[in-house]
Amino acid sequence: MNETAEVVGSLLTIGDELLLGDIPNGNAHHIAFQLRCRGFRLDRMLTVGDREEEIVPILLECLERSHFIIVTGGLGPTDDDRTCEAVARAFDRPMTTNVGYSEWLRKHLAEYGIDWSEEAARMARLPEGAVKLGLEMAGFLLEHRRVPCYFLPGVPHEMRKLLTQTVIPDLEERFPRRSVYVKHVLRVQGIYEPEINTRLRNCRFDLLGVEVGYLPQLNENWITLFAAAESEEEARNRIRQAEEIVVSCIGPEHISGCNDEALEVVVGRMLLAKGWRLALAESCTGGLIAERITTVAGASGYFDRGFVTYSNEAKTELLDVPVEMLEAHGAVSEPVAAAMAEGARRRAGVDVAVAVTGIAGPSGGSEEKPVGTVFIGCATPRTTVVEKHLFSGSRDHIRESAAQAALVLLWRVLSHDTELLSD
Amino acid sequence: MNETAEVVGSLLTIGDELLLGDIPNGNAHHIAFQLRCRGFRLDRMLTVGDREEEIVPILLECLERSHFIIVTGGLGPTDDDRTCEAVARAFDRPMTTNVGYSEWLRKHLAEYGIDWSEEAARMARLPEGAVKLGLEMAGFLLEHRRVPCYFLPGVPHEMRKLLTQTVIPDLEERFPRRSVYVKHVLRVQGIYEPEINTRLRNCRFDLLGVEVGYLPQLNENWITLFAAAESEEEARNRIRQAEEIVVSCIGPEHISGCNDEALEVVVGRMLLAKGWRLALAESCTGGLIAERITTVAGASGYFDRGFVTYSNEAKTELLDVPVEMLEAHGAVSEPVAAAMAEGARRRAGVDVAVAVTGIAGPSGGSEEKPVGTVFIGCATPRTTVVEKHLFSGSRDHIRESAAQAALVLLWRVLSHDTELLSD
Repeated sequence: MNETAEVVGSLLTIGDELLLGDIPNGNAHHIAFQLRCRGFRLDRMLTVGDREEEIVPILLECLERSHFIIVTGGLGPTDDDRTCEAVARAFDRPMTTNVGYSEWLRKHLAEYGIDWSEEAARMARLPEGAVKLGLEMAGFLLEHRRVPCYFLPGVPHEMRKLLTQTVIPDLEERFPRRSVYVKHVLRVQGIYEPEINTRLRNCRFDLLGVEVGYLPQLNENWITLFAAAESEEEARNRIRQAEEIVVSCIGPEHISGCNDEALEVVVGRMLLAKGWRLALAESCTGGLIAERITTVAGASGYFDRGFVTYSNEAKTELLDVPVEMLEAHGAVSEPVAAAMAEGARRRAGVDVAVAVTGIAGPSGGSEEKPVGTVFIGCATPRTTVVEKHLFSGSRDHIRESAAQAALVLLWRVLSHDTELLSD
Repeated sequence: MNETAEVVGSLLTIGDELLLGDIPNGNAHHIAFQLRCRGFRLDRMLTVGDREEEIVPILLECLERSHFIIVTGGLGPTDDDRTCEAVARAFDRPMTTNVGYSEWLRKHLAEYGIDWSEEAARMARLPEGAVKLGLEMAGFLLEHRRVPCYFLPGVPHEMRKLLTQTVIPDLEERFPRRSVYVKHVLRVQGIYEPEINTRLRNCRFDLLGVEVGYLPQLNENWITLFAAAESEEEARNRIRQAEEIVVSCIGPEHISGCNDEALEVVVGRMLLAKGWRLALAESCTGGLIAERITTVAGASGYFDRGFVTYSNEAKTELLDVPVEMLEAHGAVSEPVAAAMAEGARRRAGVDVAVAVTGIAGPSGGSEEKPVGTVFIGCATPRTTVVEKHLFSGSRDHIRESAAQAALVLLWRVLSHDTELLSD
């Protein structure tokens, strides 16, 4: 760590559902990551239940030690939402009706033909001095003893919206001088963690002021590079140098992208650059690959259609897989994967098609083809390739592994083709 | 809360990677859930970085208020692992070499041909009085002022193993008399949170010893019922009574399932019961609904195929949507949704088909059809229904909302049909 001013906050997530393990604390993860990306750090994350006597002392403690406080949860209209009352007590600010918000809410509900209710009135009551954040959702800012305290709803998409649109811009205005953190993730395909560690072992990233970490993901590995500096330029400069070292040690052919460039983003860009259109034929992944491909905005520029051929009839009718082939080899087989890919390519009239057929389990396996057996085919104008995999774990894990492997195969085929065509 | 003995603990998860948002805190979620299932509760979850001065005061605070403490992380052999030193300082117990463990480790490393190292020696040094947990991984138990404190590694599979094999059995032995917790979730469709609260407002669940909570999910609401009692039978009995009240106040037609019965599970069961087969035709959801349907093991018993018709050509070629209809009304329209559902039903030769066409954004919207406009069609032997929705939020959120709404429509159609056919 270096010497520039660090702006450090506390995060308090409120909800019995977190303490009881009903749901993971996705909000905490999201907030920590977004803050760090903008040069703010958390030094504590705390979770308590929906009880005033738990919330009050923690709010006071955070107030003592933090440049800012973010609180999520417990702001809803129901009786088990206790955050507002806890804030009123902790900061000794009585609850008052926020006139502007109350008026807006009245009008808004009337538009939808909803009567004014006790719950609505409760939504409009906030601790004295609170500034409403957003309108169509719960959330407010309260500055107390010069510490900005942001109270956000626990509903993830509402929290995310307020965080991005209101909280972070406000923090940036309040704390213009702060350390800049830059984190850079390199996504590695086809090398496992110990091997990555071995290849990078003797690199002196510390001399560059860059921290290196390893995060294994689902069938890909992430190498994370982290730098803190006085300016973004300085931090990025250090990261750039470290990245060059990593790429040369790992080999560029193993690095599919960086940061949020998931494989579906990378292959989308490659398809667009080649002017190729894609079709998919999925059996055991059941639409998962199509779903990932179409997550990317603008996918219609290169994705034509997907066939989720769960039944054998669908494989034959939609992809021309011969009935005899299905009978001779079974639906989960190398020739069927090839026939599915070729059939999808031909029927959709596209340049490239990927097909997956496998046994996701938990039942349906045999000695010859155990659960986790997956064949992946990829057909291009030039050739058709088929890979066999054996994945382990739950049904979900096998499906996700198969989808990831299918995208890796597509990425390899497209990289290979590009190499041969260009330069 | 009732009068049986509650055993309440604190969880401290240690790691800079959590504070920086690199990874979600899956350990906290897992531990909270496992404890709750065995009748132990957490009243606080705290996360701090790998710094002694952060860890020490929190350990002391937890000691004051908890029946037990669980700590994860910071036990590794590297210099940034500070948990042991923090424990030694907080509890005033010098670090000593654990002789038994040191011997085992020496032998173990020798077997693998690994030399005794500074790191190895460090692994064998524990705070005075610590009892080693497991051998092939970090972890120890320290009883201090009669509070058992479990220190576990941060590596998820190691933590999970120690938790199940050592920590929970030890807690059960120490606290044989404790409350049994039962949690029951009712999944509610088509009523929003304030309305749920209004309908349940006057129910005296407290008299039953049941706590009621509300958890808004993506386009569905969860009502959670929680009971603590001396026996599981007693807890389940209370939950059953509370559930009856909830169902009669909310209306059984709004409750799609309970606990882990997601809509794809419920509609799968209904399809199977009716002997119906399903096909899907997806445009903006891009395979998301097929993916959810096929998440369920045994989906091949009722799911035949899915068409991901992203291009207009695919809609015409695969689903017989007339070109003139696409030109006259646009792909995102009521007649096209109906034609897609009917085409999918006919082409797949199945009983029921669901179709989705919409604008997920971020671009592609117009004044007449803004981003978020989605038409959902459902075709059965009897009729075809189409719903229009306007969702808000990000591309992902719109896609997920549309998929959920499509499953809700399918569920309603199947419920309705069942009602008319049965009884």
